[in-house]
Amino acid sequence: MTVAGEMLRTYPADLGGIDRDALVRCIDECLSCAQACTACADACLSESDDHLPMLRKCIRSCEDCADICSVTARVVSRHTGYDANITRSVLQTCAAVCRACGDECERHAAMHEHCRVCAEACRRCQQACEELINDLG
Amino acid sequence: MTVAGEMLRTYPADLGGIDRDALVRCIDECLSCAQACTACADACLSESDDHLPMLRKCIRSCEDCADICSVTARVVSRHTGYDANITRSVLQTCAAVCRACGDECERHAAMHEHCRVCAEACRRCQQACEELINDLG
Amino acid sequence: MTVAGEMLRTYPADLGGIDRDALVRCIDECLSCAQACTACADACLSESDDHLPMLRKCIRSCEDCADICSVTARVVSRHTGYDANITRSVLQTCAAVCRACGDECERHAAMHEHCRVCAEACRRCQQACEELINDLG
Amino acid sequence: MTVAGEMLRTYPADLGGIDRDALVRCIDECLSCAQACTACADACLSESDDHLPMLRKCIRSCEDCADICSVTARVVSRHTGYDANITRSVLQTCAAVCRACGDECERHAAMHEHCRVCAEACRRCQQACEELINDLG
Repeated sequence: MTVAGEMLRTYPADLGGIDRDALVRCIDECLSCAQACTACADACLSESDDHLPMLRKCIRSCEDCADICSVTARVVSRHTGYDANITRSVLQTCAAVCRACGDECERHAAMHEHCRVCAEACRRCQQACEELINDLG
Repeated sequence: MTVAGEMLRTYPADLGGIDRDALVRCIDECLSCAQACTACADACLSESDDHLPMLRKCIRSCEDCADICSVTARVVSRHTGYDANITRSVLQTCAAVCRACGDECERHAAMHEHCRVCAEACRRCQQACEELINDLG
Repeated sequence: MTVAGEMLRTYPADLGGIDRDALVRCIDECLSCAQACTACADACLSESDDHLPMLRKCIRSCEDCADICSVTARVVSRHTGYDANITRSVLQTCAAVCRACGDECERHAAMHEHCRVCAEACRRCQQACEELINDLG
Repeated sequence: MTVAGEMLRTYPADLGGIDRDALVRCIDECLSCAQACTACADACLSESDDHLPMLRKCIRSCEDCADICSVTARVVSRHTGYDANITRSVLQTCAAVCRACGDECERHAAMHEHCRVCAEACRRCQQACEELINDLG
């Protein structure tokens, strides 16, 4: 069990009817995706002078995606004073930025392996956010 | 002129038709609101044993709002590889969390002055986000 | 292999003589500790009115620790334009805040299981940061 | 008075002997520097194909500096359960990264005005952190 699962298990108050597996998966994928995007932006920055100019949009997408995934992991890790509308809005934004960043990274996946690994992290995170949104009803 | 205004003025590429005043105001209000919310959560935590239990939801709202306002300031400070859908989604989430946090802080404004100051920062930030959303079309 | 390991493996430029296992462990522990601290601050906030006032310092320590661990994970995930002095300073601060937060959480570990789980995450993160500092020379 | 000053004025508990002006200045300079660095990294990314490769290290320094300044603003905005050792360590790391980022931006200041504006924000933030460190004793 990941730390996110352990922390959820030890939460002292009522969690409502939330799907705990979907929640833990979403937190863990947000953390992984944030890390992948930070590292992918940095890896793009180290590509050759020939390739760097084509990676501008990829770097920018990765920076946005890293920021939003980090914050999404935080928001869905909090349960006190839960507000379903805020949670849903944050998850929708996170899914949208993961889709856009996954699309952009995929364009460079055949050329740059870090973009391929990052695109896969974005896809998993997008899916985990969407599953949690569905679970919120 | 704030630093955000100076940085926007020196951006080397085309910014499209964006309303620069609305953009700078949004960045500055996001930064102020993030700081106010971090400080308000901490001030709530220092209230007396009698008041602290009533401030649980306020602390949690302030933490979410600080996180989301910080990230919104970052996203709208970037212009390279601009994606209007992402910007709009982030701004809508930010406006929603500012509204919720402003409402919660307002409930305690008569009793705790830090909640009153923070609620005002949330209102200004919500409004600045909404104006920038309108400007995006 | 975690995503951090995959991203490190696909970095396109020279990484110098860094111990890759120590680096990946540090990134992964920083991410886990940041999540544990965010969740522990929130779990503390949901404790009973009797216990909440004793948890003020724990909540505050957890918030600092979450913030610093998140940023440390980012800084050590970047390799372009590497500056050993900055990396060392960030890791030292992270180890210090993990020690302080681990100590504070440990005080409440017998009473609150989330504090016990969080203290363990802080200890592992402190150790991973210290090992990476030693590796930097 | 900035929002940081208003929030400090309304803090409900004892602040110890801290120099409030130095504290508010430090918070405000950290927020400005974080914004300048986020915007400067993005502006560098939009420079011409000829200049972009020379700006790799500048982009990376700006990203680290933005992250650390944001977190420093948060840590020094909290007063509950104050720990002088943590505060000092965070401020020292922030001053170090502002010095390094200011140096790097200065190298490009004659060519790129956004680097000049950002270097000045880094200098002011470094100085504000150092003054607060001195004040902590």
